[in-house]
Amino acid sequence: MSKALDLWPDRKAIRQQEKTFTYREFGERVARLARALLAKGVVQGKAISIIAPNVHEFLEAYYACAALGAVLNPINFRLSAREAAFIINDSEAVLLLAHTDFKDTVAGALDDSPLIKGVVWMGQAKRPELEVPAFDYEGLLAAESPEMPPLPDLRSNDLAHLYYTSGTTGRPKGVMLTQGNVTFHALAAIAELKLADRDTWIHVAPLFHLADAWATFALTWVGGAHVLTPYFEPGLVLEAFDKEKITITNLIPTMLNLMVNHPKVGDYDYSSLRAILSGGAPIAPETVRRIVEAFGCDYIQTYGMTETSPYLTVSILKNHLKDLEPQKQLEIVSRTGRAFIGVELKVVRPDGSAIAADNQEVGEIIVKGPIVTPGYWNRPQATEEALRDGWLYTGDLAVIDREGYVNIVDRAKDMIVTGGENVYSTEVEYVLYEHPDVLECAVIGVPDETWGEAVKAVIVTRPDGKPDENEIIEFVKQRLARFKAPKSIDFVREIPKTGSGKLYKKALKDKYWQGKKRRIG
Amino acid sequence: MSKALDLWPDRKAIRQQEKTFTYREFGERVARLARALLAKGVVQGKAISIIAPNVHEFLEAYYACAALGAVLNPINFRLSAREAAFIINDSEAVLLLAHTDFKDTVAGALDDSPLIKGVVWMGQAKRPELEVPAFDYEGLLAAESPEMPPLPDLRSNDLAHLYYTSGTTGRPKGVMLTQGNVTFHALAAIAELKLADRDTWIHVAPLFHLADAWATFALTWVGGAHVLTPYFEPGLVLEAFDKEKITITNLIPTMLNLMVNHPKVGDYDYSSLRAILSGGAPIAPETVRRIVEAFGCDYIQTYGMTETSPYLTVSILKNHLKDLEPQKQLEIVSRTGRAFIGVELKVVRPDGSAIAADNQEVGEIIVKGPIVTPGYWNRPQATEEALRDGWLYTGDLAVIDREGYVNIVDRAKDMIVTGGENVYSTEVEYVLYEHPDVLECAVIGVPDETWGEAVKAVIVTRPDGKPDENEIIEFVKQRLARFKAPKSIDFVREIPKTGSGKLYKKALKDKYWQGKKRRIG
Ligand SMILES: Nc1ncnc2c1ncn2[C@@H]1O[C@H](COP(=O)(O)OP(=O)(O)OP(=O)(O)O)[C@@H](O)[C@H]1O
Ligand SMILES: Nc1ncnc2c1ncn2[C@@H]1O[C@H](COP(=O)(O)OP(=O)(O)OP(=O)(O)O)[C@@H](O)[C@H]1O
Ligand SMILES: [Mg+2]
Ligand SMILES: [Mg+2]
Repeated sequence: MSKALDLWPDRKAIRQQEKTFTYREFGERVARLARALLAKGVVQGKAISIIAPNVHEFLEAYYACAALGAVLNPINFRLSAREAAFIINDSEAVLLLAHTDFKDTVAGALDDSPLIKGVVWMGQAKRPELEVPAFDYEGLLAAESPEMPPLPDLRSNDLAHLYYTSGTTGRPKGVMLTQGNVTFHALAAIAELKLADRDTWIHVAPLFHLADAWATFALTWVGGAHVLTPYFEPGLVLEAFDKEKITITNLIPTMLNLMVNHPKVGDYDYSSLRAILSGGAPIAPETVRRIVEAFGCDYIQTYGMTETSPYLTVSILKNHLKDLEPQKQLEIVSRTGRAFIGVELKVVRPDGSAIAADNQEVGEIIVKGPIVTPGYWNRPQATEEALRDGWLYTGDLAVIDREGYVNIVDRAKDMIVTGGENVYSTEVEYVLYEHPDVLECAVIGVPDETWGEAVKAVIVTRPDGKPDENEIIEFVKQRLARFKAPKSIDFVREIPKTGSGKLYKKALKDKYWQGKKRRIG
Repeated sequence: MSKALDLWPDRKAIRQQEKTFTYREFGERVARLARALLAKGVVQGKAISIIAPNVHEFLEAYYACAALGAVLNPINFRLSAREAAFIINDSEAVLLLAHTDFKDTVAGALDDSPLIKGVVWMGQAKRPELEVPAFDYEGLLAAESPEMPPLPDLRSNDLAHLYYTSGTTGRPKGVMLTQGNVTFHALAAIAELKLADRDTWIHVAPLFHLADAWATFALTWVGGAHVLTPYFEPGLVLEAFDKEKITITNLIPTMLNLMVNHPKVGDYDYSSLRAILSGGAPIAPETVRRIVEAFGCDYIQTYGMTETSPYLTVSILKNHLKDLEPQKQLEIVSRTGRAFIGVELKVVRPDGSAIAADNQEVGEIIVKGPIVTPGYWNRPQATEEALRDGWLYTGDLAVIDREGYVNIVDRAKDMIVTGGENVYSTEVEYVLYEHPDVLECAVIGVPDETWGEAVKAVIVTRPDGKPDENEIIEFVKQRLARFKAPKSIDFVREIPKTGSGKLYKKALKDKYWQGKKRRIG
């Protein structure tokens, strides 16, 4: 795959702040890394873990593993040492690539990781003492030849990556993605998003998560350029859009929300941008409206899962829908989307029959196709539960319209059942986002004597907002059925997020549900 | 794959003169055909042959076979009964789909095809008496349910199509293309050509040949539309470009040459066209110039082989080359092209080393990738000769430039060796195409006492041309090294073509070489 580099050797392809590499230089670094890994016993089929922010070394690791047929296991850098150790052990990784920004996590995790034979450090901070041999990333590269080692004979079923689920239900599971999964997805994304060598992608969402990581392969394949931001900072991303002439990227909705609400959003030139994608979580139509307003480019919603490499749908407009008035078009691209190329998608009732395509009836999304994982690493039972009759059950509830665009109403486990009525948390959140005082919000079900569950909103207000609980509840009641309105609101400074930047509703809920049992999820 | 039809059920997708089918109707016809074939014993893995012009039934056969996991063997309708019988037998087909336009070929071939258990007739002409059971295509469809039979469990190595080489060297060989080959190629073509539901493709080049057949799957996958022309007729194709609002298609260079030289070329509106592709044979830069002039759209050269599904290169401009002046851009798109996505391509010396990327040194193109055939059907030795160390040897000679664009100078077997000098036949042809009297031409080597081989041009002149042999030879001498100029010219009414419409140089050469032995090819 990285052979496509041949065609764009001199493109300034990889840019991270003041550092720049052409594809030729990048290819040489990948070759050196691959050789260094090989020398440490990372042969075809072996796994290595990596824990790092969005640095160019992360991209190099993806390609070096591809060149060796080794398995890359990217670790969420927000995890605790204990959680990281669990994943390192479970993945059976033999080596750890680690950034010094996470030296404490790494040092702690390694106390518990007997299989790791060495650590390769990147980053400038002081490195902790370890019991296993430690190496310097640049030192290893310098010692190797820049010629690619012979490519292994790879088959499409061979394992390429192991991504761990956040483990909201029990211990984390390693999602196996094969060479075939990853290659098909990259090509499919190129086809759907019309990626080409004119494109420059900015890696903002973390590279340890597929919301962004898939772009590593797809952009390189067509000779596009990569810009890296080690950590998300809304103002810096806005500036980079301008300075680095970014054409396209995929961001988590929470990130986009902070960006369009940033005081400096109006200060930059976004004329290079051709499309902003959001994915990984539902996005409020209000946020989409502001994205289009702020950036003046196309907006596309993407929906996917780690289990599906990730994309399952994109909200790209079908050709004949481009004749609709702009307002109607915006409404369609604000939906979750239509099936991604190569994906078979159905929305089904509990009995397995397809729901009506009326944008009303709610069912569960199930999918099939070359981008679906063969299963969870060493977890046959969890695999069997998720993959039934060749279909992956997503746990996502959605409606579907006559044009085949689905719209996710909630995760099954986030749906609130109050007084016998179903309330989809995202629907309530979408309305809250229209309120001028609301900067960020999450709607959850909390235990309630009378209703079973009661709807609660957790809200971060704008710096200048003067929030009034009753007024906000009233605001919702005017726009939705009354039973959907929150019974109470918690105003907070921050809503907990997952490593990838999604709202972490489980953490919110746990607070209220301690010692109690929920019906679902 | 045909699942993507779900998204565009009402698109008037398949249009052949007065006949029109939506994707829903087309899907139902495919389901009926699949069921009818199944009832006749065409189960997964079995082959059927088809001999027909570009009619909608041909597309239906491609999809019905895909739905069953059966193998489609398309036969060149220009073949003699004996040649067709050879292929039918060699492919082990159990059923023949046949169009009455070729009833004599079919009747003759069946006398010699013991494995065929039945014939399914399409077309309106009277049907001949046969010894095997004969069925009516529409009759079979009418008797079946329009629901798709259960899909088989297909693997990427399973056989999908068997295309026979024209057998210029010995008896025809069946090129095996797998599900993986075909699927990857379709997706890759979508990605490279940015195919989408806005596109309408016209099937002009015959559907039994991959130059056009690949588009069957790629266009449907994105919801594009198909227009069919049963046979090539330059004036009708020009008219259809206008009337059917064609956006893109791939034609054989000989076809394009006749079209741009057609008296009515200026009479139509081509504003829907976004790109004209040529492929299957070399094209003269002069023809490319006229294409761009006549149609006012992008031109892309494609190069491929049946053995590679077919595309190996496309002459799409890299982004940074779009800043060049138009003349220079035209020169680049007139080259054979840069590697197609997913294709690894090298141009090598006889010792296997890569030639210099100087647009001067000539080597053989060798290729690798997911679009390469696993080999020839039941011909292990021929397979071994073509596929060495995982590389397919194309037999095509080419130069390559620093940007990675290759330019084919000739097939190894068409290269002329005269007085110890190599003359590439296409180079001489390209110059001849600049001569105002030349409509079509082929340059070949003929036996010569003094020179070993002598350069001969075979020329079809324009209706209004007054050709003068010496003047034309002089014309070439002024533009190329003198030894490259033809020693003699034959003026003819027609140059023989292969079934797919390419110049058939072998037939030309055979005339002169009877009883003599050539060094090469
Ligand atoms: N566009 C979207 N709209 C709504 N939900 C989305 C969208 N994109 C992703 N999601 C949600 O994210 C899920 C997939 O996310 P991911 O694979 O990152 O892990 P997770 O499901 O968040 O966590 P876990 O590790 O517990 O599985 C989907 O199942 C869906 O619920
Ligand atoms: N753009 C192009 N420029 C030059 N030659 C081309 C181009 N496209 C295709 N060709 C020629 O066509 C060949 C592939 O054609 P195809 O697979 O249809 O069969 P064939 O080689 O013509 O006949 P045979 O059956 O004898 O193999 C290539 O090997 C090349 O020689
Ligand atoms: Mg999940
Ligand atoms: Mg050939």
